[in-house]
Amino acid sequence: MQQLVTELLQGNRRAAARLISLVENDDPQKRELLKDLYPHTGNAYVIGVTGAPGSGKSSLVDWLLKLMRKDGLKVGVIAVDPTSPFSGGAILGDRIRMQDHALDQDIFIRSMGTRGSLGGLSRATREAIQVMDAFGKDIVLIETVGVGQSEIDIVRTADSTLVVLTPAGGDSVQTIKAGIMEIADVFAVNKSDLPGSDRTVTEVNMMLDMKKSKEWRPPVIPTVSLINEGIDQLWEALQEHRRYMEESGRLLDIRRERVGRELTEQVEYLVKSSIWNQVKEEIELESLVEKIVHRRQDPYSAAADLLDKINFYGQEAEEGD
Amino acid sequence: MQQLVTELLQGNRRAAARLISLVENDDPQKRELLKDLYPHTGNAYVIGVTGAPGSGKSSLVDWLLKLMRKDGLKVGVIAVDPTSPFSGGAILGDRIRMQDHALDQDIFIRSMGTRGSLGGLSRATREAIQVMDAFGKDIVLIETVGVGQSEIDIVRTADSTLVVLTPAGGDSVQTIKAGIMEIADVFAVNKSDLPGSDRTVTEVNMMLDMKKSKEWRPPVIPTVSLINEGIDQLWEALQEHRRYMEESGRLLDIRRERVGRELTEQVEYLVKSSIWNQVKEEIELESLVEKIVHRRQDPYSAAADLLDKINFYGQEAEEGD
Repeated sequence: MQQLVTELLQGNRRAAARLISLVENDDPQKRELLKDLYPHTGNAYVIGVTGAPGSGKSSLVDWLLKLMRKDGLKVGVIAVDPTSPFSGGAILGDRIRMQDHALDQDIFIRSMGTRGSLGGLSRATREAIQVMDAFGKDIVLIETVGVGQSEIDIVRTADSTLVVLTPAGGDSVQTIKAGIMEIADVFAVNKSDLPGSDRTVTEVNMMLDMKKSKEWRPPVIPTVSLINEGIDQLWEALQEHRRYMEESGRLLDIRRERVGRELTEQVEYLVKSSIWNQVKEEIELESLVEKIVHRRQDPYSAAADLLDKINFYGQEAEEGD
Repeated sequence: MQQLVTELLQGNRRAAARLISLVENDDPQKRELLKDLYPHTGNAYVIGVTGAPGSGKSSLVDWLLKLMRKDGLKVGVIAVDPTSPFSGGAILGDRIRMQDHALDQDIFIRSMGTRGSLGGLSRATREAIQVMDAFGKDIVLIETVGVGQSEIDIVRTADSTLVVLTPAGGDSVQTIKAGIMEIADVFAVNKSDLPGSDRTVTEVNMMLDMKKSKEWRPPVIPTVSLINEGIDQLWEALQEHRRYMEESGRLLDIRRERVGRELTEQVEYLVKSSIWNQVKEEIELESLVEKIVHRRQDPYSAAADLLDKINFYGQEAEEGD
């Protein structure tokens, strides 16, 4: 297993793919591996891209990839579909894209699906970013399908977030989800050759202007991914946001927050494993469940009793409630 | 606060609304209240209804409500939208529906949005079911917009799950999400007056027949909610599934599983609060975060160190790894 880490650090693609599969499958050994990778991370800049299905997100990403490569940047792409249980390149469009970039050793594309739980997916995404970071990628692009809270959670891992909209046609952009407006650092109004594009750009700008002024005001860039229009400006806007993040100290702030959350999760993981190991040894859980099912006890006091039994609170009860 | 529980048990609607708001806002007092409610729960049968936006789910639910009321059943409806941060009846369609049933004291409709986290939403939904159960509802209908894993998690709380499809038109139903097929106990093919309806019904039936035989084979019911067609058969199918669940013992099985998960969550909640109270007293978290941000330590070993410092593992280290 240790071998995998060495190979990854040497730039072995198969090792990278293998490690991402391990984190995706929540392999028991992944913790040890991520620990070894950790000192080699911190270089990659993470860009999140989200937007409704059919907004042309993927082709925008493809154009951005080309510009990033032109700038000599090594790029990892994680395509996350919270609505799909499939992963590992099972998405058709993704396979095609992988072929497209197959000859470029400095692009690494990987897709991920839910495999059962959303919490698991956002964790696996964060860990896959760590793998790509240690693998030497300068940029990690996370592309998610925009269907609500799930993809907002995932995009929160990003240092910069690009939200892809399309012209609203007859509709007003008022229907843009509230959460989406708040996570965007840069907007693209893609398919801006369609009718209603100007209105959409204007309306989004108005919505942004109505907000209390923040240090960074997200730009709204019209693009037509089909004919590579506006992509240069989009890439420029993303780079500008990165400069702002770095120079203002915001980047360090959000990374501190992230480390804080990560530490919390790791502590809770260790605590939970330890407690359940003890409980399994000492407590007859089934009879407790039976009591609760038949309303002879409630789950809240049963939980407290259980912790008493394994003497979790120690001699002197530290928690009264 | 205790007053609220008494009022709820007396059938006070405002108390029910208030209690659901408390669980939705994750109020610190909710635990105590849910504990008091618990002995009064266990009567309600929970039916989940899911389907893509525009499948006519809500009007199907409205017709089902009428049949349930005709059978003398008291019904609670929780309309969950994982894509919306809004709740408490903020959804327009929902307000209209509430007016529609406003005079019927035995129907209680409530909508819920994400308010920040999906995990929070599925927990709040489960707790709202408890409130409606203690409130004396015989049936609790959970209606969710079908957009992926998030609504599957929510529907898992149900005793019976109705999945609403629409005729696929030119498309094959092969595109039905894998997860959706697995959670369905009853299928409705709504808008079955549209072209392609027969084919959709046939294809879903074929997909179901290809599966390894389970004890319960989900029926596929064509409906036209616009003109109240097929709703009687749908309600009959749902009742039949309930009889199957009760007579086969499956209902008790899944309720046992749910209680087990609930107990686990409550134990982990208590453990986490206790640990963090201790940590906050004893550890300088900020300097630890700083070390990790600058890669002088990794979060995995930092978490283990932290637990050592608060002497979590006791004198004799019980966990070696």
